[in-house]
Amino acid sequence: MSIGRCFGVGVGPGDPELMTVKAVRVIDTCPVIAYFCAARRESNARRVVQHHLRPEHTEMRLVYPVTTEAVPPGTYETLLVDFYDESAKRLAEVLDEGNDVAVLCEGDPFFFGSYMYLHNRLSGPYVAEVVPGVSSPLAGAAVVGAPLACRNEVFSVLSGVLDADELAVRIAAADSVVVMKVGRNLEKVRTAVTRAGVLDRAIYVEWATMPNERVLPLADADPATAPYFSMVVIPSVVAPRR
Amino acid sequence: MSIGRCFGVGVGPGDPELMTVKAVRVIDTCPVIAYFCAARRESNARRVVQHHLRPEHTEMRLVYPVTTEAVPPGTYETLLVDFYDESAKRLAEVLDEGNDVAVLCEGDPFFFGSYMYLHNRLSGPYVAEVVPGVSSPLAGAAVVGAPLACRNEVFSVLSGVLDADELAVRIAAADSVVVMKVGRNLEKVRTAVTRAGVLDRAIYVEWATMPNERVLPLADADPATAPYFSMVVIPSVVAPRR
Repeated sequence: MSIGRCFGVGVGPGDPELMTVKAVRVIDTCPVIAYFCAARRESNARRVVQHHLRPEHTEMRLVYPVTTEAVPPGTYETLLVDFYDESAKRLAEVLDEGNDVAVLCEGDPFFFGSYMYLHNRLSGPYVAEVVPGVSSPLAGAAVVGAPLACRNEVFSVLSGVLDADELAVRIAAADSVVVMKVGRNLEKVRTAVTRAGVLDRAIYVEWATMPNERVLPLADADPATAPYFSMVVIPSVVAPRR
Repeated sequence: MSIGRCFGVGVGPGDPELMTVKAVRVIDTCPVIAYFCAARRESNARRVVQHHLRPEHTEMRLVYPVTTEAVPPGTYETLLVDFYDESAKRLAEVLDEGNDVAVLCEGDPFFFGSYMYLHNRLSGPYVAEVVPGVSSPLAGAAVVGAPLACRNEVFSVLSGVLDADELAVRIAAADSVVVMKVGRNLEKVRTAVTRAGVLDRAIYVEWATMPNERVLPLADADPATAPYFSMVVIPSVVAPRR
């Protein structure tokens, strides 16, 4: 019996049709389907692929020990390291039994995802392959209707967790920008975008390509309701009004 | 008879399996398939989708009037503007006849592609929809085996056409970088990467996910043979040796 292979499978930004043909095939052929999720919450990645799951699939939920709850200083890092160690161990057991495992990842596995912490731990002892997927900035540009980058433009992706000063400087330094992880950082991100002088070009997008997708000027976005899966797209030109 | 719709279809980085399910469906249902290409050259995007083309499809080649040849100063821009005007006009005629058109785009249509010049001209009078695709930086990270961005890292995409000074400053300013359009700029890009102090992390990738894919340290890449479709991937950490 040979040992199994681990696939980090990008399932794209949300519309199940934006999965790649390869993602569909790998999910179909792997007996074990793993995914990260919060306690008592459905996994977004699982929801994207649900129509490809069959009763024969064994599902492995990797439940984050903490999410947005406050934890004592320094504790969060340790909890997560232990969690990724433990998750990799669970996968290794399944791989040792000869089963291929598909780890589902929203967007692309190597673009701001948790899969990389499993890949770090498993590649080497095991064959670990990444199936790239359509990442959310690409979906954001598609729904906004404006190019992310053209010619020799500089395109940057930033995390909304950065502080306002750094965000403002980095936004001003690039031709086009996507800010991810907006959610609770929306008001801060808007301050930074305004300071960088590009509020007129900034579009707020939540749940891109999903049924509950919303696209509106960042100026009009409501900080009280912005989900974690929201982003700000700042093309180098003003996007057409939809 | 209703007028047709224009689809900018991202076909992904090269492996036909990395097309999205939606790209396959849209290509299947559009009677007209358009793509940019150089004179006397096959289109890379067409090659990716060739197994989905049927005799009933009408193909429309949009042949660049100039590519890498030297042209008199100032002429290049004018030639291209005229070319995009003319191409949009050809598409408009087909759309007016009630036919949907799929414009094939390597990677993603809104990520350093020519489709955007058609989209600019056609959206408004016509329904123009972008089907996002897996862009080459994501494919590059997958084949290198290292994350493009994690946690709150700053990720930038740069064009190898920029001058060495600007490249060096911008590479040093980001946590992880992909330099596109390397090709004939390879030696300059390597100089910039070296000056930024990250040559040890820089991986050269050509034809990612295609049968002729090559992945090697940037230090070892040969400027004499680098194709236009090559890139340099600089993850924030040293990628594992393959």
